[in-house]
Amino acid sequence: MPVMQPLETPIAHDRIRAVEWLDGRIRLIDQRLLPGQYTHIVLQTLAEAVRAIRDMAVRGAPAIGITAAYAVVLAARARFAENPANWQAALEPDLHQLAAARPTAVNLRWAVERMRALVGKLSGDPEPALLAEAQRLHAEDIAANHRMGELGAALIEPGSGVLTHCNTGALATGGYGTALGVVRAAYAAQRLNAVYAAETRPWLQGARLTAWELVQEGIPVTVIADSAGAQLMRAGRVRWVIVGADRIAANGDTANKIGTYGAAIAARHHGVRFMVVAPTSTVDMATPDGAHIPIENRAESEVLNFAGRQTAPEGARAWNPAFDVTPAGLIDAIVTERGVVLAPTREKMALLTRA
Amino acid sequence: MPVMQPLETPIAHDRIRAVEWLDGRIRLIDQRLLPGQYTHIVLQTLAEAVRAIRDMAVRGAPAIGITAAYAVVLAARARFAENPANWQAALEPDLHQLAAARPTAVNLRWAVERMRALVGKLSGDPEPALLAEAQRLHAEDIAANHRMGELGAALIEPGSGVLTHCNTGALATGGYGTALGVVRAAYAAQRLNAVYAAETRPWLQGARLTAWELVQEGIPVTVIADSAGAQLMRAGRVRWVIVGADRIAANGDTANKIGTYGAAIAARHHGVRFMVVAPTSTVDMATPDGAHIPIENRAESEVLNFAGRQTAPEGARAWNPAFDVTPAGLIDAIVTERGVVLAPTREKMALLTRA
Repeated sequence: MPVMQPLETPIAHDRIRAVEWLDGRIRLIDQRLLPGQYTHIVLQTLAEAVRAIRDMAVRGAPAIGITAAYAVVLAARARFAENPANWQAALEPDLHQLAAARPTAVNLRWAVERMRALVGKLSGDPEPALLAEAQRLHAEDIAANHRMGELGAALIEPGSGVLTHCNTGALATGGYGTALGVVRAAYAAQRLNAVYAAETRPWLQGARLTAWELVQEGIPVTVIADSAGAQLMRAGRVRWVIVGADRIAANGDTANKIGTYGAAIAARHHGVRFMVVAPTSTVDMATPDGAHIPIENRAESEVLNFAGRQTAPEGARAWNPAFDVTPAGLIDAIVTERGVVLAPTREKMALLTRA
Repeated sequence: MPVMQPLETPIAHDRIRAVEWLDGRIRLIDQRLLPGQYTHIVLQTLAEAVRAIRDMAVRGAPAIGITAAYAVVLAARARFAENPANWQAALEPDLHQLAAARPTAVNLRWAVERMRALVGKLSGDPEPALLAEAQRLHAEDIAANHRMGELGAALIEPGSGVLTHCNTGALATGGYGTALGVVRAAYAAQRLNAVYAAETRPWLQGARLTAWELVQEGIPVTVIADSAGAQLMRAGRVRWVIVGADRIAANGDTANKIGTYGAAIAARHHGVRFMVVAPTSTVDMATPDGAHIPIENRAESEVLNFAGRQTAPEGARAWNPAFDVTPAGLIDAIVTERGVVLAPTREKMALLTRA
């Protein structure tokens, strides 16, 4: 990874697009290489999209969902070319493979289901209709993020410091961001006096991606080791912890990047409030509670190495759950595009999703 | 950092010596290079010793104290050679400089004070008497560690998993270790079913040093990201968190490596017990409570880089307190060579240190 320089032309959030449809293909920012290199990769096939999701070239629950929606367009195009009469049947295994690329984030499955609902209704070349649907889904995500930004920012008292975990910005979504969208909106509304980003081992999405987005936009950011969060709270530097979500169960229990749960426990211990920001596509009413959310365990090497460098000795093992579950009881607010749920319960979540 | 191979001849704990007096000089294992390289550095002057402590070639409160004791021998030798009649006065600034090399760990100041107490009584060549005192201090530390190992292991129910933070083994002490000494003793007594080591950003003492010591000795070890500790507890995998200390205040509040405090909060939340293991030289009855312990803030670059590589973009800042303070109320047991203090209070600490 070369020494990083600020881009000569900084990129504002509305120009950071983790996922784009361009010239009939998917174009992704390769997030594994940021902030050292800002480069794109182009996907032409379903298999390439599955690999990009699994290998974390694209990550963040909403961005994965949008990538999957566009990947359905690629897959349908290929299946229709092979067999215009019966492409829907051939597409079915593709949809399964796509939905299974990563297990925890429900947005991936949600996006595939939304596209599948349309597949059954199509005749003739499916690409125009599927592409329009994927683009609608993408645009809705961006609009939802702006709405959540307003709603979340309104909860933050002027003069507050905030801590965020992982990356939930334009890079993790269709654009603007969920939790980082709230940070952007609160910063614009002059409510923040400090933004802290936990570096977020093992992939360092906080140090690499969140800090990069904020520096691009001129929002001052201070990175901390994940383990310094409790001390930060004890020092009185933050009033809110603001995070995204990979899946919210029917009772409000929330799966998010490993480390979120420990931050929530520490927040409660210090009277610091805890906000989850996620579109309703992240709410999975079919999962009753956090115990039923599948937690992805990733390779041991992610913990035992960094950027190709081994940090632990041969012979050491690692335990690497990519997510943890924060119980609803530790969450002060869930902010969605449909409204804010304070002190979430099963009943309140049901009301929200019925709305 | 090259790819690591197990040493051809594994090093048992009684042969790992972070600090040694050899041929009239101090020999240190350079802990910045482990586990990739096992190499020594040799110190001949006070200035070299101060630099080795400040730059973390040697770290761990007891090992720093022992290094400082030997460094007083080097400094006294030089001052006596310069001015045999009045070397004690010339030594005084050296002792100040040494004691100030790092602020949080009290063992450093304690060791310098112990050596200073002898300086005033000496006439003629001071080296033999000072060296004998430093070697006594070193031997006492190793003996204390073995005693703490027994006392701490006795608290652990057979079949327990344990989590440790940072490195508190032979590399952090005169030999054997404090918290890691308890792990060693409990493992030897067949009380453990799993040892988890938090990697301990930013210096990765857990992944680099604790895992290395345990692998050398054939004790299975599983490294986790620091932020995975709460999830580990929720999964029921550990019954005890076992840590060392850099300073224990008169009321039992304990300063230790950043991340300790968050682990203690999470432990209490889950009913996991929390053990601090440290020799009484770490107890500072002159510091009334944790709020009075100076916390060292180290360079931002330690957080903005990882294993020698830049991780955050130019323009990002970092907050890098090297330690945090765990209040006595979150500590179930403080294990010292003089005995175990359960649920520490000011009164119990006073009784212990008067003993």
